[in-house]
Amino acid sequence: MTTLAIVGATGAVGSVMIDIIDARETVPWTEIRLIASPRSAGRRLRVRGEEIEVVALSPEAFDGVDIAMFDVPDAVSAEWAPVAVSRGAIAVDNSGAFRMDPEVPLVVPEVNADQAHERPKGIVSNPNCTTLSMMAALGALHRAYGLRELVVASYQAASGAGQEGIDRLQQEIAAVAGKGVGNRRGDVAEAIASAGLSEDSPFNAPLALNVVPFAGSLRDGGWTSEELKVRNESRKILGLPDLKVSATCVRVPVVTTHSIAVHATFDGEVDVATAQQLFAAQPSIVLLDEPEAKRFPTPADVVGEDPTYVGRIRQALDFPNTLDFFVCGDNLRKGAALNTYEIAEELVRN
Amino acid sequence: MTTLAIVGATGAVGSVMIDIIDARETVPWTEIRLIASPRSAGRRLRVRGEEIEVVALSPEAFDGVDIAMFDVPDAVSAEWAPVAVSRGAIAVDNSGAFRMDPEVPLVVPEVNADQAHERPKGIVSNPNCTTLSMMAALGALHRAYGLRELVVASYQAASGAGQEGIDRLQQEIAAVAGKGVGNRRGDVAEAIASAGLSEDSPFNAPLALNVVPFAGSLRDGGWTSEELKVRNESRKILGLPDLKVSATCVRVPVVTTHSIAVHATFDGEVDVATAQQLFAAQPSIVLLDEPEAKRFPTPADVVGEDPTYVGRIRQALDFPNTLDFFVCGDNLRKGAALNTYEIAEELVRN
Repeated sequence: MTTLAIVGATGAVGSVMIDIIDARETVPWTEIRLIASPRSAGRRLRVRGEEIEVVALSPEAFDGVDIAMFDVPDAVSAEWAPVAVSRGAIAVDNSGAFRMDPEVPLVVPEVNADQAHERPKGIVSNPNCTTLSMMAALGALHRAYGLRELVVASYQAASGAGQEGIDRLQQEIAAVAGKGVGNRRGDVAEAIASAGLSEDSPFNAPLALNVVPFAGSLRDGGWTSEELKVRNESRKILGLPDLKVSATCVRVPVVTTHSIAVHATFDGEVDVATAQQLFAAQPSIVLLDEPEAKRFPTPADVVGEDPTYVGRIRQALDFPNTLDFFVCGDNLRKGAALNTYEIAEELVRN
Repeated sequence: MTTLAIVGATGAVGSVMIDIIDARETVPWTEIRLIASPRSAGRRLRVRGEEIEVVALSPEAFDGVDIAMFDVPDAVSAEWAPVAVSRGAIAVDNSGAFRMDPEVPLVVPEVNADQAHERPKGIVSNPNCTTLSMMAALGALHRAYGLRELVVASYQAASGAGQEGIDRLQQEIAAVAGKGVGNRRGDVAEAIASAGLSEDSPFNAPLALNVVPFAGSLRDGGWTSEELKVRNESRKILGLPDLKVSATCVRVPVVTTHSIAVHATFDGEVDVATAQQLFAAQPSIVLLDEPEAKRFPTPADVVGEDPTYVGRIRQALDFPNTLDFFVCGDNLRKGAALNTYEIAEELVRN
């Protein structure tokens, strides 16, 4: 008897969690419980052919739950994950509330699955979607070569800002289409305003026909919360507290799937052929690196896919022991719902 | 008596050259000659209020010309710039034909204007638009701190592929608008195909609602011509033959204006406040770095502007003597027509 709860079952990531459970050949759960805000309680969702009624978040909702996967805002997780634990569940949390807590492991199963089993607080955290998009690839290289330095620039999708982000991008695209804008300063913003869209965008600037070098909130030194997450979470997942990291996080007009340009320096000598073999051997990675045949990862080819796609692997010409490559990962799947579910599978399996 | 010729006057960059000449308060030219392919000869264009007939490219077209600005394909420049020189002109060339020729200076006036006056072949080259977009900013920092290493990732606009690139992006945006695509693998490509657009895109993949990590042509080691230009041209312009450079060049669905995430390491100690002062003191740079007020450069705010915009300046947390920043420059203006014209002005002035 093993009961899995999905907290935030009616949200964007919650829906993908249900898709993933539906697509599994077998599941180890004897009961799946759907939990959401009182506003969504009473809705009925179909999971593996069975209609399940969504119940409101309450302490009692966790009674009998073995593993509770949380995809809710940070403050909700901070309050309710400990409640789930007090009722006997292990909480697997996809918010930022516990990620940097030294008593909470931050887990990517193909990189550090063992850490999921040391959880003094009964909570396991799921990394930020940007960090996750590159972590399978970096983990594979780190095991072989020893990672030392990381310089990354991201190309992050609108859905990183949730359904609101997706809707905003689609509305902006409709507003600029056929207008011939993008050649004059401010004409994209004018087209968006003319279409009646609110000035209050989740992206702080037009996203259609634009890129926005700001994601998350502002922190010390001009860094964003998103950029610091990439640094701090990479260090924690890989167990490298002194890893050197610089990240620039940029939102691009893509619906779903984050991309990252990675410049990674290792302790050992690296070469492209061995790196390609390491990537190809990982079940959670698809190697797509034949640029002469125009085969390289792009978000439009990766969205909806579970694996991380890696390509454009090059040996740095001027930096010793260094590879440059490009990686794409669906930020709602491996970047959120899938990794959370894989942690839950790891917990029930071992 | 000083005669300026524009070779390729009817092209995308040629048109911007004429716009720039029109906008100047005064010009040193007593005659402006417009030269293009025989196909465009006979067209009449207005320059500074005067109608000028386009003449066909021929050796005689350069008779009496002092400075000939070329914006034509590499092969055309390779053939015709020496002809212009043999007829007594200085050629300022915006193609890739001569950029790495040791007898041809590669000039960004605010960085290395003096080199425009040492030109054994009578030719001065204008850098690639991606390199140019960051060169004013890097030049300012290099003079103060001594540049040593450069890791960059680009966010390049469609117009880098000419008018064909602009048209393709606008057609793709119209094809995907209102379709709700971008959530399923391949649905962007399907929407583009359904709209009747050719499979033969200048971008090798859908560009609307996507990013494409490939620009230029494939070279040794999986590098692209665009990535190698960033490396080799930066070294030549800055006079740093051993500069360490890694670049990843990515096309994004922006009409015009290239953006670059820069990670730059120097010989000397750097700090954000001094870097901001250095940028603010450069006439060709606009400092836009108040992220708390949502003020940072984006392509939609920079397109059509002459200066390079710099923001998101951060001191690297883990790399000594290193700054991370984000730069946007109009690839048709400073990235092409403007810098070429500024070289011509430098030649006639000194």
